[in-house]
Amino acid sequence: MYPLAIVTEYDGTAFVGFQIQSNGRSVQEVLNGALSKLYKTEINITGCSRTDSGVHARGHVSSLNVPFYIPEEKIPLAVNQFLPDDVCVRKAFYTKEGFSARFDSLGKRYIYRIYTGDVRSPLHARYSYFTSYRPDMDLMREAASVMVGEHDFAAFCASGSSAVTTVRKINSVDVRYSPCDPDLIEIEVIGEAFLYNMVRIMAGTILYAGIGKISKEDIKDALTSPSRAKTGKTLPPQGLTLEEVYYGDDIRAQS
Amino acid sequence: MYPLAIVTEYDGTAFVGFQIQSNGRSVQEVLNGALSKLYKTEINITGCSRTDSGVHARGHVSSLNVPFYIPEEKIPLAVNQFLPDDVCVRKAFYTKEGFSARFDSLGKRYIYRIYTGDVRSPLHARYSYFTSYRPDMDLMREAASVMVGEHDFAAFCASGSSAVTTVRKINSVDVRYSPCDPDLIEIEVIGEAFLYNMVRIMAGTILYAGIGKISKEDIKDALTSPSRAKTGKTLPPQGLTLEEVYYGDDIRAQS
Repeated sequence: MYPLAIVTEYDGTAFVGFQIQSNGRSVQEVLNGALSKLYKTEINITGCSRTDSGVHARGHVSSLNVPFYIPEEKIPLAVNQFLPDDVCVRKAFYTKEGFSARFDSLGKRYIYRIYTGDVRSPLHARYSYFTSYRPDMDLMREAASVMVGEHDFAAFCASGSSAVTTVRKINSVDVRYSPCDPDLIEIEVIGEAFLYNMVRIMAGTILYAGIGKISKEDIKDALTSPSRAKTGKTLPPQGLTLEEVYYGDDIRAQS
Repeated sequence: MYPLAIVTEYDGTAFVGFQIQSNGRSVQEVLNGALSKLYKTEINITGCSRTDSGVHARGHVSSLNVPFYIPEEKIPLAVNQFLPDDVCVRKAFYTKEGFSARFDSLGKRYIYRIYTGDVRSPLHARYSYFTSYRPDMDLMREAASVMVGEHDFAAFCASGSSAVTTVRKINSVDVRYSPCDPDLIEIEVIGEAFLYNMVRIMAGTILYAGIGKISKEDIKDALTSPSRAKTGKTLPPQGLTLEEVYYGDDIRAQS
């Protein structure tokens, strides 16, 4: 068996999320099906993370074992012929024995997109959240800066999470206008690991800061004496995209 | 009656095009329905142009007459409450008596988007055409420059067109990388008026030039002794967006 990693892109609109669920079409199930066809045996991939229903990914990573060798640069097209339009394998590479896309991840980069035009935009609706507010960029950036570092993010976690600790380290939170459209705001979050719904609650809290509903001090308080009531609302899934997952340089197979 | 102009944005994926058709859901029909609800009488709009099934618009313009006065800045939200997610009114303004969105148009700006990544992109698929070629930007720009000016564009027109003359004036054709993604190429075409499928055939011809299938001289020849066989293929509709329509400064109602 050859240990392999695949980088996948998907439009999350018509999926129940990455992980296999009994109640609908998951990315994992669709990828397992295509890979099993290609390799003519049952393949079960392990994803770097679940993503919620409706969340998109440009660089989700999964690990798997495959029964025979195909040159890695030929794998994406070979798998993609068996995949529907809303998911594809962008890249594949052989990894070291025992590699886990989930446990070997060093960090992830997400972007949450907020459209702030005068009216909702049909051409942005699929990949952003629309607000009729005009949030203040400086206030949003101030709020974002408070979140950087190692904190107890319990106030930024949906209930029902089974995480052992709610302490997480956030490397950076960047709030900027999208190069695609001046009415589109991007909140880019880079961190080691995330709690359930954490990025969507961070985005909601940053947005609330931008419209004056929450202050920088409120956020500091939510990080020191956590309560979900102290943070902003969970913004909807379609604004969120998992852009990239980070791994060490040592995960490539030695040739 | 008050003459009004509305600027609309739509995702063309689920429409048969702008114009009312017997065989499916059109933008015009959906807009007529919403406006008729708002104004409590039958409203029939005139579009600046038909767009084909699957073509998008960010700034399509229509003209209509409305039976009572609503401040123009309040019209978009008032209409949008009756519209589905894939279409909206971005702006409305009162115009002079007799204004026609179609006949008073001075020109239009379209962008055709081509995605040139290593594999097809689920996150770009809805609004671009994917090619596995890597077209040469200089060759594409050379081809584009040949099309600028007043020419007989008969070779850039789908058969079945009923246009009296096939002479059209193109003001500019710009070929560039999208600010959104370095693998996305934008072909921006500004012209006074267009033949049926003209922008999609221009884009197909520019792409063919970029991959060496057609030379600059071939395009010059197609413009001087026209034949559809001399130009590139008609690229598919989802890559095309009507971005903007131009009118003179005199179309606003005098207040």
